[in-house]
This record gives sequence, structure tokens and C-alpha cells, in this order.
Amino acid sequence: MDLGSEIRRVGDAVDQLFQHYLADRGDGRDHLFAAMRHAAIGGGKRLRPLLTVASARLFGVDEARAIRAGAAIEAIHVYSLIHDDLPCMDDDDLRRGKPTVHKAYGEAAAVLAGDSFHAIAFEIMAEAATHEDPFVRSELVLELARASGPDGMAGGQMLDLAAEGQQSDLAAVTRLQQLKTGALIEYAVEAGTIMGRLPEEGRTRYRGYARNIGLAFQIADDLIDHAGDEAAAGKRVGKDAAAGKATFVSVLGEERARAQAGILVDQAIEHLHDHGAEADLLRAIARFAINRDR
Amino acid sequence: MDLGSEIRRVGDAVDQLFQHYLADRGDGRDHLFAAMRHAAIGGGKRLRPLLTVASARLFGVDEARAIRAGAAIEAIHVYSLIHDDLPCMDDDDLRRGKPTVHKAYGEAAAVLAGDSFHAIAFEIMAEAATHEDPFVRSELVLELARASGPDGMAGGQMLDLAAEGQQSDLAAVTRLQQLKTGALIEYAVEAGTIMGRLPEEGRTRYRGYARNIGLAFQIADDLIDHAGDEAAAGKRVGKDAAAGKATFVSVLGEERARAQAGILVDQAIEHLHDHGAEADLLRAIARFAINRDR
Repeated sequence: MDLGSEIRRVGDAVDQLFQHYLADRGDGRDHLFAAMRHAAIGGGKRLRPLLTVASARLFGVDEARAIRAGAAIEAIHVYSLIHDDLPCMDDDDLRRGKPTVHKAYGEAAAVLAGDSFHAIAFEIMAEAATHEDPFVRSELVLELARASGPDGMAGGQMLDLAAEGQQSDLAAVTRLQQLKTGALIEYAVEAGTIMGRLPEEGRTRYRGYARNIGLAFQIADDLIDHAGDEAAAGKRVGKDAAAGKATFVSVLGEERARAQAGILVDQAIEHLHDHGAEADLLRAIARFAINRDR
Repeated sequence: MDLGSEIRRVGDAVDQLFQHYLADRGDGRDHLFAAMRHAAIGGGKRLRPLLTVASARLFGVDEARAIRAGAAIEAIHVYSLIHDDLPCMDDDDLRRGKPTVHKAYGEAAAVLAGDSFHAIAFEIMAEAATHEDPFVRSELVLELARASGPDGMAGGQMLDLAAEGQQSDLAAVTRLQQLKTGALIEYAVEAGTIMGRLPEEGRTRYRGYARNIGLAFQIADDLIDHAGDEAAAGKRVGKDAAAGKATFVSVLGEERARAQAGILVDQAIEHLHDHGAEADLLRAIARFAINRDR
């Protein structure tokens, strides 16, 4: 199992799906579709689709279907990046090594590009090609809506804005992260279990895996931001400190944060101990979560 | 059949559902939920939920379920109003007689309130309480995503922004309206037919009805904007002319626009000629579409 080639394969398949949904319509909306392609194609680690593919693999789900579900989740992730980068939010100019959408296409197109990805996510998820069983599609949609709404990602971004300049402890930083990035990462793993029709009681260990790597991933992000290598990161760094935002690094210190991330990855992998080689991709993703420079 | 009491009943039920989904969580997100309640509760004509209830009534669908689907559609409508009012979009200060969300709660909360309504719409729609058949829920979700995304409402808003200061003819204004407001109004009627499990070939006449009243409704909106009674409209008026935007009134003139709206309403009602009293609410809504001052 070579992680690099899995990342490229899943990334290419997600790009292809996005190319299909984001083709120009040949009218005044072409500016919108150009903005969307700029945001979504050929960039990003595709962590979420990769998690869905890896999780679905445990249960023998057809990979083309898992990639569709993963692309829907990636569309939610991309919409959140576009909106979070807006001047009224985190005001970022650089993302994945390119100008942010509002810098390149204007703020109005950025708002609409985010909104359009949000809708396309649910369109992809609800189409019959994603799963033959409408009950599964319904559950996929329902849990995606919950993971991305005010009790998930959008609520986490609100907590993040509210936390600026506030004193925060480890519990508050953890809670914020669990909503802002954790909920969607957890859902990416859960989507594979839903597609595999795993009964509710069998899902606990995969939630445990997902929660651990979600936290580890965020600690690694905070370490990247703290280390401050903008060229490698492909985005502005050192921002959290400048905005007076508490992070895992600011509340734990660099050394303990790094140690904690390692422990979380070990725990994540431990949740998979009943599985053989079919879980190797999930194991490799867990290690990758903390061994990266962007 | 008393339209006023139907409007109040459906409106109250939608408010109650929103109160449930938008209750404070008792943390840093309370500002977000306050912004969302400000935008959604106790305001608006609730045209879309009313259309879903009226259409579902033709097929004996349980009304509480139709109201849930209607509330999901209203959540999409509310998100679009919040985002369209942003300074980078139409830059409006007044909506439904109150300050717009970004004026009252700030731009960041407005972006997130819109995003959260977007997610809640799909949450409500995919929950089992909305329909017992997961195939129906899946179809409801899929068509809602298509009606609100770049080939529907969001795409129409992009066309609207692109049209500023451009010469537009009747065909262009019609096309813009069919995406920006028509697609979601049409879907509100279609949702009732989906819930009633009407086969595809039986839906044509209801699409005809919906397309006619969607156009009539927009012409009436343009006439209200043109007449310029801000207190009655509850929002800034005369804006389209100021922004150099073509409207049905600017391309047809006031008199022809009014006549055209009347013809569209007659045609809408004609599509219902096979129905008896069970279609009276749809007929009353059609007449109401053009007889209103806001």
C-alpha cells in the first residue's frame, strides 16, 4: 500500500468529478464556475475523500461510489475554506499556494462559489450513483448536514470568531476544534460505515479512530502555523498568534503538542487492531496526519 | 378557504419548527442563533412553505410533513436573503421591516447564519419525520440541491450581479428570474408532488402552474420596487433602477407588466382545471401573488 499513489488516485478522481459538475454553462455564470474551479481543482490534500475511501474499503463498498461521497464532503470543505477566507471572516489572501477566491474573483463571486459548493455537495450525495439504497443516501445526507451546520463545522467557525482575544484553556480549544474541523473529518470516516451498512453499534471504534486523527490533524496544523514556513504551507502562517487565538500549541507548548499528536495517532491505529491489510490505508492516513509540512 | 388564516397557520408552524432548530446552545454560538432567529422568525410571507402545503394537499399528504418540507425550503430562501443582502452583494440595510442580519449582527455572523440555514434545510429534509419513504426523502434532497445551486438560485444571483449596468431584453430578464427566484418557487410546488409520489409524467401541469406564478410573483415584486413605498414593502425600494438593472417593469413598461402578471395568474389557475376544492389554496395563492404590497 503506497499512500502517495492512493492520494494521487483519489485526488485525480475527485478532480474529474468536480470538472464534470463545474463545466462552464456558456452564460453570465462562467465567472462563478471559473471561481469554483480555481478553488477546488488540483489543490488540497483530499484528506476527507481519502478517509471515506479508506473507511469504505473495510466493508467492500464499491470505490467509485465512495469517491463520489468523498467528493461531496470535499465540496463542503472547499465551501468552508472560501467563506472562512473572506475579509469579514479570517481575511486570508493565500490558500493552497494561490490567491484566495475573493482575491482572484471578487467577494460576491466568492460568497456564491461557497454557496454553490454547498448545494453541489448535497446534489452529489443524493444522486443514485452514490449509493443504490435510498435509505443509505438519506442517512448520508442527514449526517452530512449535521456535521457541517451550526452543531458542526459552521458552529465551530462561530466559536473560533468568538474566541479571538479571549483566554482559552485546553478544553475550550478541543471543543472548538471538534466542531470546526473534527465534525467533518469524523463524518468522512462515518460515511464509509454508512455506505457499508454497518449497524450503529459497530461504528464506535471508527468514531474513535476519526476523533483521534481529527485532533492529531489539527495539532499538526497548529504546529505548521507556529513553525511559520509560508512557502511550504501554501497559506499565510503565524496568523493565530497574531489574532490572539488560542491553539493547541499555545495552550500545550510545542513539545507537549507534538507528543500529544503522536499519542493520538497511536490510539487511532489501535482502534483498527481487529483489521488486517484492508485497514492499511486508514493506518497510513493516521501517520500522515502528523507527518506533513502543509 | 380563507387565505389569511392559512397563511397564519402555516407561518406559525414554520416559526415553531425554526424555534426548535434555532434554540440557544448556551455557548459562543448564541450570537449565531440570535442572528438566525432574527432573520427567520415572525417575518416573510412564507410563500414557499404555503405552496408546498397547498400542492401536497392535492395528493392527501400529511400536512405536518408538508410543513417540514416547506420549512426546509424556507430555510434555503432565508439563507439566500441573508447572503444577498451582504455589502459585497446587494448591500441592503432593511429586510422585512427590520435591519438586515449583517447590520444587526455583523458580516461574519451573517455569512455563517446563511451557511447554517443552508445546512439545516438539508437536515430537516432528510429526517425521517419529513417522509416515511427514504426514496422520497432522497428525491426531495436532490431536487432541492439542484433548485438552489448554480443551475438554480445561486446561479441566478450570479446572473443578476453580472447584469448590472448591462442592456437586457425580456428573454434575459426572464431567464435570470427563472433561476434566481423561479427555480425555488417551482421546487416548492414540485416538493408536494414528490411527497405525494406523483409519477414524473403527471407533474407537468403543476410545473406549468409553478412557472406561471413564479413569473407573476417576480413581476409583482418589480412593480412594488418601482412604485417605491418603502414602509409597505419593508425593504429598500427603487434599487433596481438605481443599480441600472433591467426588470420586467423596465423592459415591458408598468402597464404591460401589470397586464402580463394577470395573464400569468389566469394561466396558472387554468393548469388546475381538473381539480375541485382541494386546489382552492393553490388558486388563492396564485391570485395573492400579484395582489399584495410587499
